[in-house]
Amino acid sequence: MQAGLRPSANRLVSSADHLASTAGHPTSVDRLLGSVLSRALGAAPVRLFLWDGSEIASDAAGERFQLRLHSRRALLGLLIHPQLYFGECYADGSLDVEGDLPEALTALYEATPKPHGVHVAIDRVCAHLRRISPSRSRWNVHHHYDLGNDFYRLWLDERMVYTCAYFPTPDATLEEAQLAKLDLVCRKLRLRPQERVIEAGCGWGALALHMAGRYGARVRAFNLSGEQVAYARECAARAGLANRVEFVEDDYRAATGRCDAFVSVGMLEHVGLRSYRELGRVIRRVLKNDGRGLLHSIGRPSPAPTNAWIVRRIFPDGYTPSLAEMMEVFEPNGFAVLDVENLRTHYARTLEHWLERYERAVPQVRAMFDESFVRTWRLYLAGSIAGFRFGSMQLFQVLFAGPASGAVAATRADIYRQE
Amino acid sequence: MQAGLRPSANRLVSSADHLASTAGHPTSVDRLLGSVLSRALGAAPVRLFLWDGSEIASDAAGERFQLRLHSRRALLGLLIHPQLYFGECYADGSLDVEGDLPEALTALYEATPKPHGVHVAIDRVCAHLRRISPSRSRWNVHHHYDLGNDFYRLWLDERMVYTCAYFPTPDATLEEAQLAKLDLVCRKLRLRPQERVIEAGCGWGALALHMAGRYGARVRAFNLSGEQVAYARECAARAGLANRVEFVEDDYRAATGRCDAFVSVGMLEHVGLRSYRELGRVIRRVLKNDGRGLLHSIGRPSPAPTNAWIVRRIFPDGYTPSLAEMMEVFEPNGFAVLDVENLRTHYARTLEHWLERYERAVPQVRAMFDESFVRTWRLYLAGSIAGFRFGSMQLFQVLFAGPASGAVAATRADIYRQE
Repeated sequence: MQAGLRPSANRLVSSADHLASTAGHPTSVDRLLGSVLSRALGAAPVRLFLWDGSEIASDAAGERFQLRLHSRRALLGLLIHPQLYFGECYADGSLDVEGDLPEALTALYEATPKPHGVHVAIDRVCAHLRRISPSRSRWNVHHHYDLGNDFYRLWLDERMVYTCAYFPTPDATLEEAQLAKLDLVCRKLRLRPQERVIEAGCGWGALALHMAGRYGARVRAFNLSGEQVAYARECAARAGLANRVEFVEDDYRAATGRCDAFVSVGMLEHVGLRSYRELGRVIRRVLKNDGRGLLHSIGRPSPAPTNAWIVRRIFPDGYTPSLAEMMEVFEPNGFAVLDVENLRTHYARTLEHWLERYERAVPQVRAMFDESFVRTWRLYLAGSIAGFRFGSMQLFQVLFAGPASGAVAATRADIYRQE
Repeated sequence: MQAGLRPSANRLVSSADHLASTAGHPTSVDRLLGSVLSRALGAAPVRLFLWDGSEIASDAAGERFQLRLHSRRALLGLLIHPQLYFGECYADGSLDVEGDLPEALTALYEATPKPHGVHVAIDRVCAHLRRISPSRSRWNVHHHYDLGNDFYRLWLDERMVYTCAYFPTPDATLEEAQLAKLDLVCRKLRLRPQERVIEAGCGWGALALHMAGRYGARVRAFNLSGEQVAYARECAARAGLANRVEFVEDDYRAATGRCDAFVSVGMLEHVGLRSYRELGRVIRRVLKNDGRGLLHSIGRPSPAPTNAWIVRRIFPDGYTPSLAEMMEVFEPNGFAVLDVENLRTHYARTLEHWLERYERAVPQVRAMFDESFVRTWRLYLAGSIAGFRFGSMQLFQVLFAGPASGAVAATRADIYRQE
């Protein structure tokens, strides 16, 4: 994986590396810093070990996990900027967690105070100022989604849906739950045959194909990832839907024409706070006045900066909004919000499936990339489980309507008739 | 009805009255001003007549309604501040609408641009600055809700529910739809027997009684209206529920103790934008960490000042928020929004029922109050129908959960199983 390193972050890393180069047996200063870190971990049921195997005494009761620091760099990193260095050190192996990783991370979330301080303040200002240009979007998408279809195929469902699934029952399989999600989106939109749909950020095309194949819609689906578009076109051809679904390798801002429904599942996270109004203007331009739309995005219970490590290693420029922040897409552009559903627990369950499949595929992932990549993605999936379980991350599915639209339907009962 | 006149508004009225005192046969200036007004009405299918019965020529096609101005005051008022003087002049009879009143008002909404200008700007700033103290709240509530139970009984349903109903089918009766709403709220909250509920602003007590009687909950319901509380206590005694429901004649801010669920239906409109955070803090204080809550309120598609006439004559200090503005209750206080449902079309239907019953009861209303009161309330009900039909008004039902709550339920299917 390429790293989206910024100069200031580079300097931090360099100075930590410099200090770490002087490692060796833990000194009394190391043990003192270890105690400071232990106190910062609060009531988390975690035992802390330094690189010589010695334990830092802690007040926490009922320890269920071991946090092992294999270098001074890990110790200093966790003290300087834990949001960033937990991930950095886990990825390079200078930090290890023994015990169930998602559970350990959930316990850490629960026990430690919300991130705050100067890093958070800077991140917050940056999120508001950052404008993500089409070329920057292209690079961001390439960074994450062009890791190779072979990689994603190892742990996604058969339709290659890389967004929160919907579990009508807790024991539904991942395949069933992803299909249920695709259908839930169509039912919420009350899609009818021959209706025109524009989809922004279509992944490997599963939703577009479902809308066309199951609901008879005519879909134009935009995506910046060349690998995904190629795959989606193949699927459309194989399903005999190439005449109903057009996959366009372009930015959603390039959309033209008018549609009855606008849908975007899992793209808002890449749009950037500053461009929400612009997204709303694009939707307003393409959506008929009486049209409907659905935005599905990871969110937050209240505004918060994206985890610094996630921004650096997983989603460059990623930002997950609060519901009030999401409204910036709709309210200035005359859209009325009809329905919001929070699917947080469904994303935790989805990620549990993904992590389980990922762990089984680790030998293949290691052969494709390297050990650091294996650990980076394990932490990303496990940390996301923890975020959705703990509630620092939410999943909002927002149904909205154009300014001249009546209600889409009198009640929501029809959505659930077949469940 | 007492008027919540503010000094500046008084001055405006006086100067319009002064100009109007010089009335008589329309002059060429009156006809010129009539043309200006006609143009301001845009494409609305309305014919405009002055007080001598003469018509102002208009470009609008397919006129379906007649707007008759019976005085120069009405003409000047509509030009100076239409938001305020349409209502003022309709109430005192110096303005009349011929044709279906809700339809005419909807057409006027559709044809005229959104309110803007200096009045709107001032109203907007005031909404943000206005803090509504408990004593002011008490006066506001008294102004509207203490008009007499006999008055409301004339046109509300048998349970005296004065908020948006829920129509499982479009032809449900008002009685059925209000009961369906009460039950929908309980199902969304997944109320269980013996759970403690705090209700803020309980009206005549129908929801509290339903939660206790049908779901076995123990309810403390707050209300500032002495008339309503007395009525609700009688109902509780008659239903044998006095030991499960306590009606407290006090401000919601006086709530103490801890509850499993917090519910407020149709109170947020009186809280005032500046006090949303305070409302959130009160909920946080009383709601268990794993508790659930539901707020039901009239809203807007985007932030907008309340109609000036409504604030003066119907709801002093009333403010209807956009969804983003509503989030100020939840986001700073660690609540996660689980579900938002927009019931706009249900409120239009509810108001149609109310207006129909109200028109039948006009002789009794006239005997209780006077003709100006009759016309004021007719316009308020008809204008609200128009607002909900047109979409300038929305109805948001927001389900939320405390910071330590899991999901209330895996999916929403259980809510709709019995519909």
